[in-house]
Amino acid sequence: MIRGDGIGPELVDSALTVLDAVADFPIELVDVQAGAGAYRAEGSALSDAGLAVIREADATLKGPVGLPDVRQSDGTEAGLLGGILRNGLDLYANVRPITLLPGVRSALRVDDGIDYVIVRENTEGLYASRGKGVGNDHAMTDTLLVTRAGCERIAHFAFTLASRRSGAPADGVRRVTCVDKANVLRSMYFFRSVFLEVAEQYPDIEAECLYVDAAAQALVLAPEHFDVIVTENLFGDILSDLGGGTVGGIALCPSGNIGDSHAYFEPIHGSAPTIAGQDRANPLGQILATAMLLDHLGERAAGDRIRGAVRAALRGGSVRLNPDGTVASGTRSTTDAVLAALG
Amino acid sequence: MIRGDGIGPELVDSALTVLDAVADFPIELVDVQAGAGAYRAEGSALSDAGLAVIREADATLKGPVGLPDVRQSDGTEAGLLGGILRNGLDLYANVRPITLLPGVRSALRVDDGIDYVIVRENTEGLYASRGKGVGNDHAMTDTLLVTRAGCERIAHFAFTLASRRSGAPADGVRRVTCVDKANVLRSMYFFRSVFLEVAEQYPDIEAECLYVDAAAQALVLAPEHFDVIVTENLFGDILSDLGGGTVGGIALCPSGNIGDSHAYFEPIHGSAPTIAGQDRANPLGQILATAMLLDHLGERAAGDRIRGAVRAALRGGSVRLNPDGTVASGTRSTTDAVLAALG
Ligand SMILES: CC(C)[C@H](C(=O)O)[C@@H](O)C(=O)O
Ligand SMILES: CC(C)[C@H](C(=O)O)[C@@H](O)C(=O)O
Repeated sequence: MIRGDGIGPELVDSALTVLDAVADFPIELVDVQAGAGAYRAEGSALSDAGLAVIREADATLKGPVGLPDVRQSDGTEAGLLGGILRNGLDLYANVRPITLLPGVRSALRVDDGIDYVIVRENTEGLYASRGKGVGNDHAMTDTLLVTRAGCERIAHFAFTLASRRSGAPADGVRRVTCVDKANVLRSMYFFRSVFLEVAEQYPDIEAECLYVDAAAQALVLAPEHFDVIVTENLFGDILSDLGGGTVGGIALCPSGNIGDSHAYFEPIHGSAPTIAGQDRANPLGQILATAMLLDHLGERAAGDRIRGAVRAALRGGSVRLNPDGTVASGTRSTTDAVLAALG
Repeated sequence: MIRGDGIGPELVDSALTVLDAVADFPIELVDVQAGAGAYRAEGSALSDAGLAVIREADATLKGPVGLPDVRQSDGTEAGLLGGILRNGLDLYANVRPITLLPGVRSALRVDDGIDYVIVRENTEGLYASRGKGVGNDHAMTDTLLVTRAGCERIAHFAFTLASRRSGAPADGVRRVTCVDKANVLRSMYFFRSVFLEVAEQYPDIEAECLYVDAAAQALVLAPEHFDVIVTENLFGDILSDLGGGTVGGIALCPSGNIGDSHAYFEPIHGSAPTIAGQDRANPLGQILATAMLLDHLGERAAGDRIRGAVRAALRGGSVRLNPDGTVASGTRSTTDAVLAALG
């Protein structure tokens, strides 16, 4: 566990209560200090010892991290653990389900039918440039990197996910949509080309390609069309927050950062330091991230129990949401409502 | 005029009818062949002679261009005139108003209050890499470039626009929102820093900064907050299509590409070759682009007349839209409805 910064600790506490209630198997929990607080205290967002613990773990549950005033010398934020973990552990698939839960009012004029997964490439793209931009006071550049190996594995991941997931788009057609900017950027044309090569190995799944601008419009106008979306790192960052906006806000959105040997699970929202410690933060993203962690450990039934309880609590009105994504009922009573719905 | 590809010619015809009806001053119209069709016929999306005509013009009205099967050797689409014009004529500001018009059903649960402008930096950012990506069959890279000079001028443009535009956000506060990814990318931190320096020269206008992922969510959850948004080239591309999705689709969205000496105006949608010549394309984006062109020429009253007529036709129901953004009433009868509303 990485409790994280800001609202992180209270969210992880909440999620652990729920985990404890569903786990009918022993779990050894180990705390690792990491994030912006750790960076401020120790000059590093994650110590080598901490990283070793995470490497040993079957999976990691992570709260949000980052504090806006903790910065590196190049001005970018410090303690944004994502880079260290995602690249350090080669967690190449950032899996972000976008699901409109019952009882949640979408900003769109739809009551259901939003149920897709964004598979965000997590180790290259524009993020390959994180901390590596170059320049001076007149100009700065960053680099967008696409490798064949990186594309192949993320495309395979997306098709495998599409063949296994339980949700389906409105038209019942299993599909993987590649989102790129192949008309303008050579790297993105390369991304699309490799995607289409990999697609040939999955003849039962429809493969389609969309430019990122068209995709942004389509996620607003026709979200029911989508099943699995696979895309570049920063595009996935943008589109998943857009998608989050259509399903009640990113406060409700969990994610998994998954590689061949390691994985961590977290909500996609930030650490919201201004509301930390006030019992106002919405723990549902963190709780749903815990369900994804359980799926990953092969404990799908336990994961399903958590998702079912969250749905029941929202449907029954025992959890109420503010328009800004915080919970009207408070962090602790929201957790209690989920626990009650677990039965 | 550049009539363009696909539905371009019929849209430009429609817009010229409207222009003719409002112009109480002489206009000399000159046709320039350009786009994917020109590329296929002549090996270049725009001849030197064509560029010279555009340089001489007071402004250019452009239809959409591009045909998916016309490609360059690097795989990217050919005849996408944007690069040639935007960089060749140093049209650094891509101005994209996002306005929910009366009678248009937003995909969001709102009936009004969406009225902001995206100012997309139009000459650098990731598009600086257009056609310049490098690599081989194993990896490809593109470069995101931010220059101080580029940032300064686009920031000044945004603040000047905010001080002059007639719309205002719901809270009545004039603001410019800088959208970046300053927490991860040095170039984007630089963009933000220069923006904040420029902001000091405009003490009467609120300056705020948002990460692009948060901005994507906010355009869905709280569009009424925004006034003028200034952002990097590709971010602006993505966010303007997202915004278009919230105001009835990009078929309704005009744009201006404006520099210190030249400018062209176009709808933000594509050339939709599959529906070309069928009287199905929506001409309103092109017609509203013509209104922006008139504003730019100092003929604001004529621009306002066009916008007023489009609003009246939509409000009165004489123009009806399909959910996919095409017009239920046909291209020609939509044009006639706007002409009728001009009185
Ligand atoms: C905090 C930030 C660096 C991070 C990212 O951009 O990846 C976050 O937005 C996310 O989506 O996980
Ligand atoms: C056609 C394409 C190259 C262009 C762009 O990405 O700039 C278009 O999407 C636009 O927004 O004007």
